Amino acid sequence: RHYRIAVIPGDGIGKEVVPEGVRLLEAAAEKFGFRLDLQHHTFGSCDYYAEHGTMLPANWKELLTPTDAIFFGAVGWPATVPDHVSLWGSLLQFRREFDQYVNLRPVRLMPGVPCPLAGREPGDIDFYVVRENTEGEYSSVGGTMYPGTEREIVIQETVMSRHGVDRILKFAFDLAQSRPKKHLTSATKSNGIAITMPYWDQRVEAMGERYPDVRRDKYHIDILTAHFVLNPDRFDVVVGSNLFGDILSDLGPACTGTIGIAPSANINPEGRFPSLFEPVHGSAPDIAGKGIANPVGQIWTAAMMLEHLGEVDAAHAIVAAIETALREPASRTRDLKGTATTREAADAVLRAFAAA
Amino acid sequence: RHYRIAVIPGDGIGKEVVPEGVRLLEAAAEKFGFRLDLQHHTFGSCDYYAEHGTMLPANWKELLTPTDAIFFGAVGWPATVPDHVSLWGSLLQFRREFDQYVNLRPVRLMPGVPCPLAGREPGDIDFYVVRENTEGEYSSVGGTMYPGTEREIVIQETVMSRHGVDRILKFAFDLAQSRPKKHLTSATKSNGIAITMPYWDQRVEAMGERYPDVRRDKYHIDILTAHFVLNPDRFDVVVGSNLFGDILSDLGPACTGTIGIAPSANINPEGRFPSLFEPVHGSAPDIAGKGIANPVGQIWTAAMMLEHLGEVDAAHAIVAAIETALREPASRTRDLKGTATTREAADAVLRAFAAA
Ligand SMILES: CC(C)[C@H](C(=O)O)[C@@H](O)C(=O)O
Ligand SMILES: CC(C)[C@H](C(=O)O)[C@@H](O)C(=O)O
Repeated sequence: RHYRIAVIPGDGIGKEVVPEGVRLLEAAAEKFGFRLDLQHHTFGSCDYYAEHGTMLPANWKELLTPTDAIFFGAVGWPATVPDHVSLWGSLLQFRREFDQYVNLRPVRLMPGVPCPLAGREPGDIDFYVVRENTEGEYSSVGGTMYPGTEREIVIQETVMSRHGVDRILKFAFDLAQSRPKKHLTSATKSNGIAITMPYWDQRVEAMGERYPDVRRDKYHIDILTAHFVLNPDRFDVVVGSNLFGDILSDLGPACTGTIGIAPSANINPEGRFPSLFEPVHGSAPDIAGKGIANPVGQIWTAAMMLEHLGEVDAAHAIVAAIETALREPASRTRDLKGTATTREAADAVLRAFAAA
Repeated sequence: RHYRIAVIPGDGIGKEVVPEGVRLLEAAAEKFGFRLDLQHHTFGSCDYYAEHGTMLPANWKELLTPTDAIFFGAVGWPATVPDHVSLWGSLLQFRREFDQYVNLRPVRLMPGVPCPLAGREPGDIDFYVVRENTEGEYSSVGGTMYPGTEREIVIQETVMSRHGVDRILKFAFDLAQSRPKKHLTSATKSNGIAITMPYWDQRVEAMGERYPDVRRDKYHIDILTAHFVLNPDRFDVVVGSNLFGDILSDLGPACTGTIGIAPSANINPEGRFPSLFEPVHGSAPDIAGKGIANPVGQIWTAAMMLEHLGEVDAAHAIVAAIETALREPASRTRDLKGTATTREAADAVLRAFAAA
């Protein structure tokens, strides 16, 4: 087994945690007997932009298409490049042009992670957020009337296609069907967003009829965020549009202690294009350069990538090592009320991985 | 002092909690020496819709315009009328046609309310969500291409005007300036929603320059929801678009224990039209008819309405009575882990109000 992986650290703490993820990947290759061909790229970062005036080289598709997966850190450095420029010029372009229409994000309360919710134990919270990743509210369609005047009007279009909605729902229902609870929750806002969201509801109903064994319910996004805090044990698979999935997949990890440990997969399920793996957290300019970022999100991301590539045993071994490491207060970073540096926290996971 | 108030209970638990709010209003009128002329309306409910085929009579504007305020319960009964029909036919129409462009929602951890967040005490959480209430993501502009086919495409437009954005920002900055912390947080998503949201950011910057004494920051909505859970003590005034404000003003009250106690004001600050006061919670079909809904949200709403009308002492006395009542486990409803009925919980507030 031999995998070609593009490594794109990006900006801020992306540059600090990606190398730690790579160490785990390399240890896993050695222990489980597969080969990794890692191709390191500096593009996709605002440094690259400062030099070249674009986030990516013109031939980025040629460079990345032949890879088996993309191991991504985080992009964004608003002090020098506006976020919408850096993100639409990199991550959001990958998602769209590589048709990574599934954004899959586990939400799990891990042993050893102090939970911000009162009285919750590991095992109580364990679900997936399935986020549509290519259309919806993240459109680049729209514009401005009367720019710069008192009469200024700015319009942006949310676009949902049957193609786009049905395929993400199918993925989510399949996932729900494969799990013991077989329960799917749809995030909607059809009472207020009165054109696209009733359409979303209608497609959920239609798809649901093909999965009679999957129990389904729906909540408006406002009260759904409330339930994440009040009843997180209620969920199994939660499916949402691009924006709602984005919100829920930060909120979910926050409810389980920190977004610093949460991984995500941007998947092209058909395998026509490489899938992209990144932690849920961003480039975090406020703590960048200090060596205190939590590397666990990036390391768990490495596990998700290996699972996707078929290295299931290696993936499980990494997650088990994360659990072992997190039990030790000394290996927790600041976001987990610990004092470990990025390097120390990653060392602890590596030690647990080697020892298992 | 003499106030004309339209009373619209609406659907579900709206019909159960509005009478309790009215009891407090009447007690306050008697105690503080003002007169209330209450005009009860059955319209705005799905029962009315079943009979008339519309949510409101044709002359609703004539009926409501001369009032001093609207005391509203909750609308929605999806079993018989789709939510977007009932809401766009009532509440959302009031907000728009009465130009109630400010939706103001306090988030406060009350003594006696079990907090779902670990280790938080009353006093730790005390901020306002200021929500734009007339434009943005809640538009009725858009439509469907190729309906009913595989090629179906559904489009909905988010519309922001300088007029609409600037006036809500001005309200929020004024509010922040009037508070001791003088701190304004803007909810954005300019990294993903790349047309309207960068515009929002730009107007926040421009308005901020007129308030040099107000400290301002901004967070993307995804990480902002995480901070509501992890660092709720960080906020003072949080301003958001129609959708983001909607989400944050359910999530905030959930973080302080229950949305069952949270009030809200839909304000036309110029006073050209009546303002509308309603609890944050909805019609809650799942618990309707059982007499177990929490009346505190509606009662606190009564206090917000009186404050708006200038009856500040009466308003404060009601809030104080709520605090007293909530300290007693016996006067807490089920959402607060108590066993009190709607009526018992309201009785407790009334007793505290009378005794003070
Ligand atoms: C019922 C619904 C349309 C409404 C809204 O989204 O504005 C409600 O959630 C609210 O917050 O007042
Ligand atoms: C950086 C940003 C554009 C991105 C998104 O909103 O998709 C991020 O928040 C995420 O969740 O991956």
